[in-house]
Order: sequence, then C-alpha cells, then structure tokens
Amino acid sequence: MSRLSLFATSLLITPLLLAQVPAAPAGRGGRGNAPPAINSCEVAPDRTVTFRLRAPEATDVKVSGDFVQGALDMKKADDGVWSVTSAPLSPAIYSYTFRVNGVSVLDPVNPAIKLGERTSESMFEVAGEKPATYDMQNVAHGTVHVNWYDSKTLSVWRRMDVYTPPGYESGKGTYPVLYLLHGSGDTENGWVTIGRANFILDNLIAAGKAKPMIVVMPYGRARQDVYLGPAPPPAQPPDPKAFENDLLKDVMPFAEKFYRISAKPADRAIAGLSMGGGQALSVGLNHLDVFQTVGAFSAGAGGRPEGLETQYKDLLADPAATNKKLKLFYIACGKTDGLFAGSQALHDTLAKHDIKHTFAPSEEGHVWRNWRNYLADFVPRIFR
Amino acid sequence: MSRLSLFATSLLITPLLLAQVPAAPAGRGGRGNAPPAINSCEVAPDRTVTFRLRAPEATDVKVSGDFVQGALDMKKADDGVWSVTSAPLSPAIYSYTFRVNGVSVLDPVNPAIKLGERTSESMFEVAGEKPATYDMQNVAHGTVHVNWYDSKTLSVWRRMDVYTPPGYESGKGTYPVLYLLHGSGDTENGWVTIGRANFILDNLIAAGKAKPMIVVMPYGRARQDVYLGPAPPPAQPPDPKAFENDLLKDVMPFAEKFYRISAKPADRAIAGLSMGGGQALSVGLNHLDVFQTVGAFSAGAGGRPEGLETQYKDLLADPAATNKKLKLFYIACGKTDGLFAGSQALHDTLAKHDIKHTFAPSEEGHVWRNWRNYLADFVPRIFR
Repeated sequence: MSRLSLFATSLLITPLLLAQVPAAPAGRGGRGNAPPAINSCEVAPDRTVTFRLRAPEATDVKVSGDFVQGALDMKKADDGVWSVTSAPLSPAIYSYTFRVNGVSVLDPVNPAIKLGERTSESMFEVAGEKPATYDMQNVAHGTVHVNWYDSKTLSVWRRMDVYTPPGYESGKGTYPVLYLLHGSGDTENGWVTIGRANFILDNLIAAGKAKPMIVVMPYGRARQDVYLGPAPPPAQPPDPKAFENDLLKDVMPFAEKFYRISAKPADRAIAGLSMGGGQALSVGLNHLDVFQTVGAFSAGAGGRPEGLETQYKDLLADPAATNKKLKLFYIACGKTDGLFAGSQALHDTLAKHDIKHTFAPSEEGHVWRNWRNYLADFVPRIFR
Repeated sequence: MSRLSLFATSLLITPLLLAQVPAAPAGRGGRGNAPPAINSCEVAPDRTVTFRLRAPEATDVKVSGDFVQGALDMKKADDGVWSVTSAPLSPAIYSYTFRVNGVSVLDPVNPAIKLGERTSESMFEVAGEKPATYDMQNVAHGTVHVNWYDSKTLSVWRRMDVYTPPGYESGKGTYPVLYLLHGSGDTENGWVTIGRANFILDNLIAAGKAKPMIVVMPYGRARQDVYLGPAPPPAQPPDPKAFENDLLKDVMPFAEKFYRISAKPADRAIAGLSMGGGQALSVGLNHLDVFQTVGAFSAGAGGRPEGLETQYKDLLADPAATNKKLKLFYIACGKTDGLFAGSQALHDTLAKHDIKHTFAPSEEGHVWRNWRNYLADFVPRIFR
C-alpha cells in the first residue's frame, strides 16, 4: 500500500490532464522529450509544397509521388530535418511517399493516408480558388457504410463500402445504384479515401446536377479483405470470373437486401477505374440485362480493333438492340495514359458499328486526378 | 496516327490483363522490375513473429511496438532484407513501427494500419487456439457508418463512426446507445480499426451476451477532422468543455435524428479509454440526467482521494440519489499503468461513500490489449 500511496500522492495534476498522457509512442519507447513537431507537407499560397522529414541519422532522403516525375532530393538542415520545395502545382489531391535511405515510406506524421491493398501513400491537397467538386463543402452529406459480408462464391469474408445520399435515413423510396470499382493496388475504400466519391456525390446532388443514388464499392480482388491481415502477394492474375461471381451473386443480393435499391436494370450502373474499368466492361457489357449503364475510366479497354470485333461480337452484331439496352456507355482516358490506345480503339470500333457511347479523352495519364474528374463528369449523365 | 497504331498493335494481351497494369508505384518511378515480395510480419505457429524490411541502403533498422520493451535490432542479409524474430507472444493484436536510420515508419507493405491522429502504426494479430472476442467470426455482422456532421458548437466539419447491430437495416424499433470515446493519438476510427469494437459487439450479440445496441464513436478533439488535412499539433490541452458541447449539442442530436436510438437516459451509456475515459467521467458523471451508465477504461480518474472528494462532491453527498441514477459505473485499469493509482483512488473514494460501482483491475499497462478486453467485459453488463 505504501508504494501505491506514494505514487498517488505525487499525482497533483487534474484528471483531464492526466487523461491526456498518451501511450508511449512506439518509436521512442516513452523516453525523453519529443522534438518540436514539424509541418511535414506544407502547401504555400503560391501552390508550391514544402516537404519535411526529421531524419538526423539518414544519409539519403527523397520524396516522390504523382506530383513529380521521378523523385525530388531533399536536403538536411542542422536540426536534422530534411526538406525540399516542389514547383507550383495545379489544384488537386496528390499522393506521396518519402524514400529514406532507399526505403519508400509514408510520411510518419501525416494522418491523411491512402490505404492500399499492400502499399499505402500519404496525401495532400492543393486547394484552388474555389472549392473543387471533390472538396468537402457546406452541403448535406451522405453516409458511407462499411459492411462485412460472407462471400459464398469466394468462401471468405469481405467488405463493401456503400454510400447513401443525404436524406436516405429519413426517406422511404428506392434509389438507383452505381457499382463503382477501384483500381489495382487500391481496396474497396479507395474511391472514398483518395477518390472522394462521397464528397463528389454530395456536391453534385446538392447542386441538382446528379440524381440521388446509392454507390456500392466492393473489393475488386477475389480474396479475403486486406483488413483481416496482410494478404500474400497475388501469385497470378486474378480470375475475372471469380470477381464477377462475387459481384453478381454476393455483393448485389447483399446490397439490395440491406439498402433501398431499385432492382430495375435501367437504375443500375457499373463503372470503374483501371482494373475496375476492365471489370466494368467485362461484367457490364456481358450483362446488359442487369446493368444498362457502363463507365470505363482509364480501363484496359482492348487492344487492336480486330480483337475488339471478336471480343464484342454479340454487342456489335445488332446495334439497334444494343443501343436500346445500353442507356449510357461512357469511356474516358488520359491522352498520355499507356492504356489510351485501347480506349481509342474501343471508341473507334463502337463508332464504326454505330453503338451509342460517349468518349471523353482528357489530358494527363493514369492518375487519380483524372478519375475524380471522370466520376464528376459521369455521374450527372446517369439515370436520366 | 502512325504512332498510335504502332502502340495499339503492340498490345496483344487481353483487356483484363491490360487492366491490371497498375499506376507506377510512387517509390520506384515505374522503372525496373520490383524485387520479390517479402512477408514483412510473419507469425509462426510457435507465436514468434519475424519482421522483415527490404532496405539494402539503410545502415540501422529496428522494430518497436507494444509487443516489446524498447526496440529489437534487425540484421541485414545479403539480399538487403533486414529481419528479426520476436519472443513468443500471447494471442493479441499488436502494433509496430520500423525505425530506419532513426526514422519511425509504418511497415511499407502491410495494409493493416492503425490510423492515428498524427502518427499511425502497423498492426498484426497473434491468433489463439480459439477465436477471440475481437476476432471476425462466422456470425451476423453489424454495419459501421461513417457520418460527416457540421459541428455548430465548434464551427468545423467532423466525422463520427456509428455501429448499428445486425438486423438494424430491416428492423423498426429503437436501440440503446453507447457513446464510445477514443484515446489520445487516435481518432473517431480508433475503436474500429485497432479496437475492433464492431467485431466485439457482433460476437457478444451473436452469443446472446450483449443487448443489441448502437455505438456512436465521435472524434475526441475539439477541432476539424484529421481527414481534412494534417492538423497542426495541439498547442495546448484541449478545452474539455468544447468537446462536451460538441458531444451533447451536436453529436447526440445528429445520432438521435439519423438512427433509431432510444432517448431514455437508462438506455444511454458513455465510456472511453485513457483521454476518452477522462471525458466519459467528466461528461457522464456531470450529466446523470443524460447518461445512466459510465465506463472509464484506464482513465485519468483522479489523483489524491482528497481531490476526488472535492471533485465529485455532489455525487458523493447523496449516495442513495446517486445510486438510483447511476445504473452502472465501471472502472477498469491495468495494474502497471501509470494511471492505475488514480483509478484505485477513485474506487476507494466511491467505496467509502457507498457509491455502487464495479472496479476491474487487470494485468498489464496502458495498452490496446486491455481496452478490447474491457469493452468485451463492459458491454454485457450494460442496459440490463
């Protein structure tokens, strides 16, 4: 008791101050005072960004990401903080990692993290003069629901994120639904954390530019959710049929049971980026009885026009029938994207056969900046 | 056109293979082949854990976390991969960071991340022979809702995570509600990502050990959500009244409007860990007309018994009245926690004044292992 009493007597600070004592930070073992906090990623009014990393014992520190070709060398100051300032950047959300003696790592003190399937990245935003479509604005916000479901087709537990629009909780009717698929390296959460799909929908709905809709974001790999532990690296390309089965036989029935979703094909869209764009084409175009709207963002859309003629034979054979079923077919890709030729070839083939579609080539390449814009361009067109 | 055609002609792989081409990883600039993937955190059957980090150019690599005192030195092999194996660990969820030439960083290839307010950590689980209360089990799962709300009292946008139990979506009645507060360094998402509150509730509800309930998890700091950008480090301790105002005047009205929550004080509980435990005591005990159940996990619960007599004067003055209002008052703390003396003193003071309460001292200290267990011990007792 004496030891306890002595200890108790020494606690003269208030309960709430006491309560702020954090667990010892893992990296410092709870010993010594922390050095002054740094602003690790500071966006200046001129839209340059200064990156800083405290690394007194490192001998080589760089920063790289989708704001720069290659990497920027950082320089160490006397206080052990490495820094470098970027060129002025266009307003956008960017991702980055530091490279400490050759090891690519997240910014240790930036809580804005794009969680990846295996590797993650830190994020920052360069704001424009006006709020962007993807910015949190002073409008009514929908809800993102994190659902665990037992995939019978895959025999694993998986997550899907579901966006419901403002007013859903207090409403009664059904909504059209967009199945929105992520790219390679991301997870079911990618369209929310880095893609801002929820804010994009909030803003477009508030402006009267998009119909209130539900957005279902499943995991695009045919295996258990990454949250359940580090997944082994894929030994081979995923089986596209396995994902399709999960989507059609597990994800859709779950979503339609739990949410007030219209079951009319005209009220169902499927879209995705990169790998997810390929999945949207593959699943969507082969199931026009299920989905009447298809969106392919920077997708692996095909190669030689001759290949496309074979691949989409049924679709191209009867343009009138296809055009009747396919309410909207939207294809977007950046002109400097390595996948652009495929999108262009798909557009050419569809045009040749008079299949109605929208082809929206954009600047830049295979980057998130494009995908947010594509979603914001696509969503106002659907369910009309 | 010729350049385009040449490029297109070279694309002889199928669309879905094409679609798998990821964006160039930020750290490698898209050049060269990636080295073979490593298992960065491998749990062996004997419950030792081998950590690995590819860092051929680093000269000093360690791993630390809540599984070890201090840090473990790692050794470099000829392939540039550093590794070390821990002692056998008890079944639990642990967090860790690597230290590369003095810089504490997340495991670059482990997607299981405990997102922090400023610094984050990687996670791994050592499984036991049977699934733990916090493990994903083959039971019905509730939903975690991510809600953005406009805090009028703080004039900022913030997030709250809300757990609804299985069956909520298809049901009609109201549910009791637990307001569950995180600790310093975590965010509103901490109780889900590292705390597994959703799985704990799922399992206890499935076993008939807990009443189906809604759990509301707000952000404990009186500022904008960290997702909206790196927050500057707190210049001073947060104003406890600002958080209380947000909770009572913004969080609760929002939650009660959006979710089918019982508005009876007997159906409301407030609990938290560490900083959140202090908040639960401060807000809960001062509003027994609002909350009739209070839980303090490893909280800054007070210091000297004399201070507590003053601090809780009103509560202690009329034990019969207090005991009538306070349906359950639960206090848990690890015996090696620096905050244990405060919890012990609070227990002693309450006992002296015949205030009904449950005091549940546990082994170990200020670690997440304890907080999951406390929640699993607390939840079956409430709303009875």
